[in-house]
Amino acid sequence: MSFKIQVPASSANIGPGFDVLGIGLQLYLTITVTIDPTIDTTSADPHNAILSYEGDGTVPLQTDKNLITQTALYVMRSNGMENFPNGTHIHVNNPIPLGRGLGSSASAIVGGIYLGNEIAGLKLDKGRLLDYCLMIERHPDNIAAAMLGGFVGSYLNEMCEEAHALCQAPLEYILPKETTPKDKIISQQPPFNIGEYVSYNWNRKIKCLTIIPNFEVSTDLSRSVLPKNYELKDIVFNLQRIAILTTALTQDPPNQKLIYQSMKDKIHQPYRFGLIPGLNTLLEKITPEKYPGLCGICLSGAGPTILCLATDGFDQIAQDVVEIFKAENVECDTKLLDLAYDGATVEYS
Amino acid sequence: MSFKIQVPASSANIGPGFDVLGIGLQLYLTITVTIDPTIDTTSADPHNAILSYEGDGTVPLQTDKNLITQTALYVMRSNGMENFPNGTHIHVNNPIPLGRGLGSSASAIVGGIYLGNEIAGLKLDKGRLLDYCLMIERHPDNIAAAMLGGFVGSYLNEMCEEAHALCQAPLEYILPKETTPKDKIISQQPPFNIGEYVSYNWNRKIKCLTIIPNFEVSTDLSRSVLPKNYELKDIVFNLQRIAILTTALTQDPPNQKLIYQSMKDKIHQPYRFGLIPGLNTLLEKITPEKYPGLCGICLSGAGPTILCLATDGFDQIAQDVVEIFKAENVECDTKLLDLAYDGATVEYS
Repeated sequence: MSFKIQVPASSANIGPGFDVLGIGLQLYLTITVTIDPTIDTTSADPHNAILSYEGDGTVPLQTDKNLITQTALYVMRSNGMENFPNGTHIHVNNPIPLGRGLGSSASAIVGGIYLGNEIAGLKLDKGRLLDYCLMIERHPDNIAAAMLGGFVGSYLNEMCEEAHALCQAPLEYILPKETTPKDKIISQQPPFNIGEYVSYNWNRKIKCLTIIPNFEVSTDLSRSVLPKNYELKDIVFNLQRIAILTTALTQDPPNQKLIYQSMKDKIHQPYRFGLIPGLNTLLEKITPEKYPGLCGICLSGAGPTILCLATDGFDQIAQDVVEIFKAENVECDTKLLDLAYDGATVEYS
Repeated sequence: MSFKIQVPASSANIGPGFDVLGIGLQLYLTITVTIDPTIDTTSADPHNAILSYEGDGTVPLQTDKNLITQTALYVMRSNGMENFPNGTHIHVNNPIPLGRGLGSSASAIVGGIYLGNEIAGLKLDKGRLLDYCLMIERHPDNIAAAMLGGFVGSYLNEMCEEAHALCQAPLEYILPKETTPKDKIISQQPPFNIGEYVSYNWNRKIKCLTIIPNFEVSTDLSRSVLPKNYELKDIVFNLQRIAILTTALTQDPPNQKLIYQSMKDKIHQPYRFGLIPGLNTLLEKITPEKYPGLCGICLSGAGPTILCLATDGFDQIAQDVVEIFKAENVECDTKLLDLAYDGATVEYS
């Protein structure tokens, strides 16, 4: 038996939509699984699967330490299955750069949930798969975009106390480490309806130019620089913009001025200037007045990647953003990507 | 010469959309103007117009004290015209209850702007009329809904220092009182592009049930109870919901659960419980589980009016909301209204 899971990269926030908006991007994590019971894998790994990896960076290859297989093991365990079948080989091909704000860990989690769903033969529907994903990653923006594809907004429901407590459990109880006490390991299925989403009808003329600096920013660090408190005027600034942006990006022809202004943010980007040298300059200098094809510019997720939405003039925008980073001694890679309209898929061969 | 201006009532915020979202409602302020130069009005009023009023409450009838004509005089003055033509009679019919959160002052301002535009023969386009409105009322939610009708979201642009200063001028410089120093009176036209808006495609199956308590809440008081600072989790709560709500209200069939959840708010409503007895109880007890036709419930603007969006079962919802208010010794009026899809209009006879 053999099957292949593909999960797109994603870009979250899109300016004002902190922890809300996300888009799937045509850059895919691919997980290829073969199960051949004639090859014994029980002695090679504590959970009977041999894992191999190619792509950005390095990742652990033991199934109880790798994010994809750890996640799959939670799905399997909470449905009565402790191990992969004998003879399981899992090959991961990951072109999504790690720690750059392109949703690599969301893709790994979604991939892992899909992997567990297939291995355990659960046939869960999308709503339930989303519950499993949100048990592991409580920020729905990248998760929803990676799972569903396209342009997505999502919220977390208010839950009863018991369900809330389950969702707040430390991650190492759900994806256990060697040090996790045995009696703390969570084998419960997630509560129902943790989150909800809507898909917006993205104008396909708008493409995503990503400029990817050659350094990582951890999401935890990038969250730690945010203030404890915000003033109402900055909140209203973002509320006004997110309300316009979700519709502006669906209109045809795209209204560049409207998109550009409604992609501005006062909740997270200004506080991240210190972590991403050049960001301040970029947001000031890269404007639709100077770059006729540009619709908007923002930090992709927690950064450091820059997302430029544009219909044209990609080379000039890319060149000038790269120049601004170069002046800060930062080298960049650039990728022009379309939206991944289909989200995560599973294909049997 | 005779013409008639009609401006709808409006409901702002719609839950999470504080200072952002608004809907026009089919309850119209009507301003009927006749100009008959054979009747002398120059001795009756400092600006040559005779004003009469019927409708909710009482309002000043001198043109430099009445909000509608004060607003018209700003438009006229900033375009070189100091007074109404000799023989002007203005009759105002206003069924919009004053100070109840149904946009009565936004309607008066929009009506005044349209009145000034007609009297001075300016033929301003909608974008420019919106600039004039936003010079006088800097919260665009009710203004945009009253002017444009339908379901509208809006933001204020960031402006250059000079334009910003002009927009921040005290209101009594724009709508002068007797005590305003002559040299402070603003006769300048507003800056261009103060705000932008989008119109969302409201699902016409959804009607607006308004429950209007018999007491007034001033917007200033209702703003004064809001906290100085907010935590990020409450901000994300509203950002997630406003992003979903604007699309959820356009979907067909309406997804009641999605609308109900995405109409929740943590930025303004909880802080207004003390001003509006019963509000807390209402938000808890009036749910789609108990009222099958209900889509969502929120405070209308700064209150005290309650807005229930529903497709059916209006009588039962109205009755039970009225009961909850009655338990707090508050009497209510109820109105079932459709959206005013056309916004403000001018008609010559």
